[in-house]
Amino acid sequence: MTSTTSFTRADGRAQDQMRAVKITRGFTTNPAGSVLVEFGNTRVMCTASVELGVPRFKRDSGEGWLTAEYAMLPAATAERNRRESMAGKVKGRTHEISRLIGRSLRAAVDLSQLGENTIAIDCDVLQADGGTRTAAITGAYVALADAIKVLKEQGVVPGDPLLPPVAAVSVGLIDGQPCLDLPYEEDVRADVDMNVVMTESGEFVEIQGTGEETTFTRAQLNEMLDIAEKGCRELVHAQKAALGI
Amino acid sequence: MTSTTSFTRADGRAQDQMRAVKITRGFTTNPAGSVLVEFGNTRVMCTASVELGVPRFKRDSGEGWLTAEYAMLPAATAERNRRESMAGKVKGRTHEISRLIGRSLRAAVDLSQLGENTIAIDCDVLQADGGTRTAAITGAYVALADAIKVLKEQGVVPGDPLLPPVAAVSVGLIDGQPCLDLPYEEDVRADVDMNVVMTESGEFVEIQGTGEETTFTRAQLNEMLDIAEKGCRELVHAQKAALGI
Amino acid sequence: MTSTTSFTRADGRAQDQMRAVKITRGFTTNPAGSVLVEFGNTRVMCTASVELGVPRFKRDSGEGWLTAEYAMLPAATAERNRRESMAGKVKGRTHEISRLIGRSLRAAVDLSQLGENTIAIDCDVLQADGGTRTAAITGAYVALADAIKVLKEQGVVPGDPLLPPVAAVSVGLIDGQPCLDLPYEEDVRADVDMNVVMTESGEFVEIQGTGEETTFTRAQLNEMLDIAEKGCRELVHAQKAALGI
Amino acid sequence: MTSTTSFTRADGRAQDQMRAVKITRGFTTNPAGSVLVEFGNTRVMCTASVELGVPRFKRDSGEGWLTAEYAMLPAATAERNRRESMAGKVKGRTHEISRLIGRSLRAAVDLSQLGENTIAIDCDVLQADGGTRTAAITGAYVALADAIKVLKEQGVVPGDPLLPPVAAVSVGLIDGQPCLDLPYEEDVRADVDMNVVMTESGEFVEIQGTGEETTFTRAQLNEMLDIAEKGCRELVHAQKAALGI
Amino acid sequence: MTSTTSFTRADGRAQDQMRAVKITRGFTTNPAGSVLVEFGNTRVMCTASVELGVPRFKRDSGEGWLTAEYAMLPAATAERNRRESMAGKVKGRTHEISRLIGRSLRAAVDLSQLGENTIAIDCDVLQADGGTRTAAITGAYVALADAIKVLKEQGVVPGDPLLPPVAAVSVGLIDGQPCLDLPYEEDVRADVDMNVVMTESGEFVEIQGTGEETTFTRAQLNEMLDIAEKGCRELVHAQKAALGI
Amino acid sequence: MTSTTSFTRADGRAQDQMRAVKITRGFTTNPAGSVLVEFGNTRVMCTASVELGVPRFKRDSGEGWLTAEYAMLPAATAERNRRESMAGKVKGRTHEISRLIGRSLRAAVDLSQLGENTIAIDCDVLQADGGTRTAAITGAYVALADAIKVLKEQGVVPGDPLLPPVAAVSVGLIDGQPCLDLPYEEDVRADVDMNVVMTESGEFVEIQGTGEETTFTRAQLNEMLDIAEKGCRELVHAQKAALGI
Repeated sequence: MTSTTSFTRADGRAQDQMRAVKITRGFTTNPAGSVLVEFGNTRVMCTASVELGVPRFKRDSGEGWLTAEYAMLPAATAERNRRESMAGKVKGRTHEISRLIGRSLRAAVDLSQLGENTIAIDCDVLQADGGTRTAAITGAYVALADAIKVLKEQGVVPGDPLLPPVAAVSVGLIDGQPCLDLPYEEDVRADVDMNVVMTESGEFVEIQGTGEETTFTRAQLNEMLDIAEKGCRELVHAQKAALGI
Repeated sequence: MTSTTSFTRADGRAQDQMRAVKITRGFTTNPAGSVLVEFGNTRVMCTASVELGVPRFKRDSGEGWLTAEYAMLPAATAERNRRESMAGKVKGRTHEISRLIGRSLRAAVDLSQLGENTIAIDCDVLQADGGTRTAAITGAYVALADAIKVLKEQGVVPGDPLLPPVAAVSVGLIDGQPCLDLPYEEDVRADVDMNVVMTESGEFVEIQGTGEETTFTRAQLNEMLDIAEKGCRELVHAQKAALGI
Repeated sequence: MTSTTSFTRADGRAQDQMRAVKITRGFTTNPAGSVLVEFGNTRVMCTASVELGVPRFKRDSGEGWLTAEYAMLPAATAERNRRESMAGKVKGRTHEISRLIGRSLRAAVDLSQLGENTIAIDCDVLQADGGTRTAAITGAYVALADAIKVLKEQGVVPGDPLLPPVAAVSVGLIDGQPCLDLPYEEDVRADVDMNVVMTESGEFVEIQGTGEETTFTRAQLNEMLDIAEKGCRELVHAQKAALGI
Repeated sequence: MTSTTSFTRADGRAQDQMRAVKITRGFTTNPAGSVLVEFGNTRVMCTASVELGVPRFKRDSGEGWLTAEYAMLPAATAERNRRESMAGKVKGRTHEISRLIGRSLRAAVDLSQLGENTIAIDCDVLQADGGTRTAAITGAYVALADAIKVLKEQGVVPGDPLLPPVAAVSVGLIDGQPCLDLPYEEDVRADVDMNVVMTESGEFVEIQGTGEETTFTRAQLNEMLDIAEKGCRELVHAQKAALGI
Repeated sequence: MTSTTSFTRADGRAQDQMRAVKITRGFTTNPAGSVLVEFGNTRVMCTASVELGVPRFKRDSGEGWLTAEYAMLPAATAERNRRESMAGKVKGRTHEISRLIGRSLRAAVDLSQLGENTIAIDCDVLQADGGTRTAAITGAYVALADAIKVLKEQGVVPGDPLLPPVAAVSVGLIDGQPCLDLPYEEDVRADVDMNVVMTESGEFVEIQGTGEETTFTRAQLNEMLDIAEKGCRELVHAQKAALGI
Repeated sequence: MTSTTSFTRADGRAQDQMRAVKITRGFTTNPAGSVLVEFGNTRVMCTASVELGVPRFKRDSGEGWLTAEYAMLPAATAERNRRESMAGKVKGRTHEISRLIGRSLRAAVDLSQLGENTIAIDCDVLQADGGTRTAAITGAYVALADAIKVLKEQGVVPGDPLLPPVAAVSVGLIDGQPCLDLPYEEDVRADVDMNVVMTESGEFVEIQGTGEETTFTRAQLNEMLDIAEKGCRELVHAQKAALGI
């Protein structure tokens, strides 16, 4: 890494260091899986609910489906944000993150082993301090694992649909330096913002990197991917510890 | 009370007994006031955020305003319920409860002492097991108190807007017997469902009683109000204990 | 009652006196029941239409259903109010009243005797001068009775679904005095506003009392319920006279 | 006219004969102008409300504006139709008729004499039996006249904005025969359906003729216009009689 | 015609002269029929897509159906207009034109020969310079013809549903002079604006004439219809030339 | 690259070969910039319109803004897709692409040189065959360049806001082989789908890679980026040729 010794982060972390990660299972009791995930001050409630049947485009396929919805509570942010249900429209950002979570989690489930059931992932941000989408993906995998266990115990699921962990982390360039797991304060002033979703085996599920204020070189991309890989490895470790596997 | 010895509630409570009540301040850190309130398994996150300025109809009145929004997370209930923002419309029930919370909390604040500021109350149900609206009102008062303290510390509020506590409880007729603080299971089979909002001094802020499946007599109304009064008294005690006053 | 001799209402009525009530059947000819109800200057067109079949949650129950929708014509009020269809959203107040009317009228019909039919109640306020929701409930009962008669004549309804009358009235505290059937002018300055829905036998279907500007004591509640009972008794009389029963 | 002696209308009218027309002023009291207009069984409540100020595109023009909204009450038709506010969208037909009424009435008002005020016309169909839009235009002129009188009495209107009457009538081809003022039963089976809006002096404000099921010749157009002219003349007579001018 | 020698149009055309008309088939390849139609600078992409099945109200009728949707691209006009999908509501004008196109094209197809198939016409205005709806109807007929040819080749259509051409043109009064095919600049200042839809045999499908700023006499109507007839005749000629028939 | 000789694409292209690219300026005349861009059979109309003023969050910043909206015409795809304005809601995919285009084009404009003006980019897909978002970005840059030229000629823009070209291309893994610029047929069966937005100097503006059906390794990522870079270089060449620079 090209980071120089003179660079320091506001919270004192090393550039390739995650914030404190905490995964609490059984956060609520009604959904099949319910997890509170914390990346520093970011806190997301991730649930996995099971619905019999599948959407129309999957009907009679013998396969299941997984959907995801992301939302931020109005008081999650420093300034209260308007409730989308009252505004009568869902923001593009919300749609985009919901779709990302759905794609990412579908990489962690073998739909052909699920039977014609649908798993609905809900990620509701209770407190936002950067990295809400990556915390959501990371926590949702644990909720998914719990939900599938319930399904198997109930004999609803014919096979063994759970695949190895998928985790996600944000990484960015701050003053030209690659930094892992950006809190809000860093996120706002990052030149480049990237979200990386990886499997336990170190393969990519999704990469999204954007440099609205600036652009980035191939070398910088590689630096960012290096530390993202480290972060995801640690997150998978935390997921497995939480699940006791 | 006319309760006979033979009547027993599923959870073993006496007819005039509240579920365990727990009020946690500082549940999240961004809003001025943030409270997790629990009535048994019902858990509601209540926040109070401050916005400069007031809605148009209050402009140049020298007074403040208070609004409230209630919502249920999709996975709060036993069956996942559809997210209202995605459905594109807010249910009548949601509107009704939001309006009730707003009216109730406005009885706990002297708007003329608030300056031209708006307090936005958000009550998001994390887990639902009956009595979500009454828990929301009870918890929101504590969040409101915290928010007003912040405003006063910031010197934004000219006067002393916080009025004595307002608390709310549900009460119903089950098999003709008045019961306090109904969980979901009792709520579903209650003949009459009533919500009572009271002040510390025992006056009513709001009474809403409905007997869709049946009707109720004046005598039964009085029995229900008697135990509701007991419940509200205990809730005010819990609010004050939480606030250390 | 504690009313003193010095208190006078703007329209000269006694505190426990209704405005002139007029119920006109057959106001329009297309719906099975069509009634114009007038409480003083408040005029509401109440219709009951019959739809074959029931909503999904009632399917195969052998029972019928009743729904209600309330709306105010744009020019019903002193200031024209915006048309909700053009605004693209229905106000919380409208939802709330529609739901109240539905619950109240379902107390006047034995759904198990209705067959799998739905009765749709529409209450459209032509002219508003306070008490529109209570006038709507009172008039809708008459429209409902007419619609059920049509259904029975057509042989569609197996049993005898009409139950005894349900009527509703508003009552409030004005300068601390309980007053019956508030016109707009009194409604605006009332300290407490209460709506009471009762059956012919004097039992409550629904009580909704709110004191946004102030609170009210148990004694004041009882005074208000006393005069509400008198009002409802007179309204049931008017309903029966209109129906010739 | 080419009508043969053998052709008879279900209600016994001659081909060029209007249904009974009735115009009742002061139908409700809140809006500046309020009229109930009846063309046979079609009954439309037409109101004209005054709003200070004008829409943005007219601001600082020194001129006023006139808008119109048309709606059908749910129970106005033989089959109850869904309430547009609840459906969350306004039908194309409704928009189309609202626009037609607005254009037609703007031909009856000199906007330059109105000052920067807006007149809002509302036409709500209480009972529908064909010709609702033409009845609405005809009745709305009378409501407009009353509203302008109020404005002049209040000294709000600088000039004399009311122009001579505008009236409207439907005409169609039934079994190839031109017929005036079609009720619903004829409207459904008409080959061609035309709405004609005329001034007192016999000039056209608007012509809309459509032959979805068939087409029509220039000769047939002329026959239809001839009887439409007769109908509009009679309607203007009725408007002036109602206004006592 | 009463046109005097002194009257000249900005683009030098005679009063009864069309702008240059160009009809390009196969403009895009996915839909069954795809046409770019140009009336001077007005350019509309008209497509005809085939959908199996019919809307509910046509089910089991043995007949087909045809629907149409019209829209304007945001940058089609001189000032960019707001995208209706983003605004969340479709303008009344758009609904009105879509309905007009649908009715007009249904006059060009024998639904009983179509089988239970639906043809969806889309008319998207790429560039607007007046007369977009009449260009749309004229071009859509050609797209419809192509789509029906495809259906017949696929053996989906049992009969011979295509009827003779339907074309449309605008006509107006400018400074009291009847003018054919108004560009935007003339449209804005026209006293009367009329759209005429005709069949090849010279019968009317639809006439819509409006004089918001003024009114028009029977004589002026006749003058406008005379030149509209000439325009439609030429457009049918262009349609047939494009189709090679 | 690891491509083996045995791998062939349906359209005969080499794995790192673009489809035929065509950029037509002045496609329509109303917007300041109007471009038709074609990547093979994919055709997108890209326009850049200028609006005075900036959104609220940029007011008094002295800077300009750029927004973008993407949409697909209903008949652009093989199966007609529903018009979003009629459906009443915009799909998440549409929002996502609109946001991507906006971010990408903002990397090509120096907002501080634009004055307080807004450039609105509209990308409407006339015909879709894969790669619509990358074609949109590539074409929109040319429309943006034309619009800025107009602004400068009008003296509205104080500085020189146009930055060097930004272009975008899709790349994917098909049967494990990296392929450039996927048409629809390849897009559907690709294991990984990646969109890369680059500047003329070869820096990244945005990378989005997703492997819903599978995952991908760091090595495969590098192979894909290699050919994406080649594609973007060629596209910038085409942009500059079109602009004559």
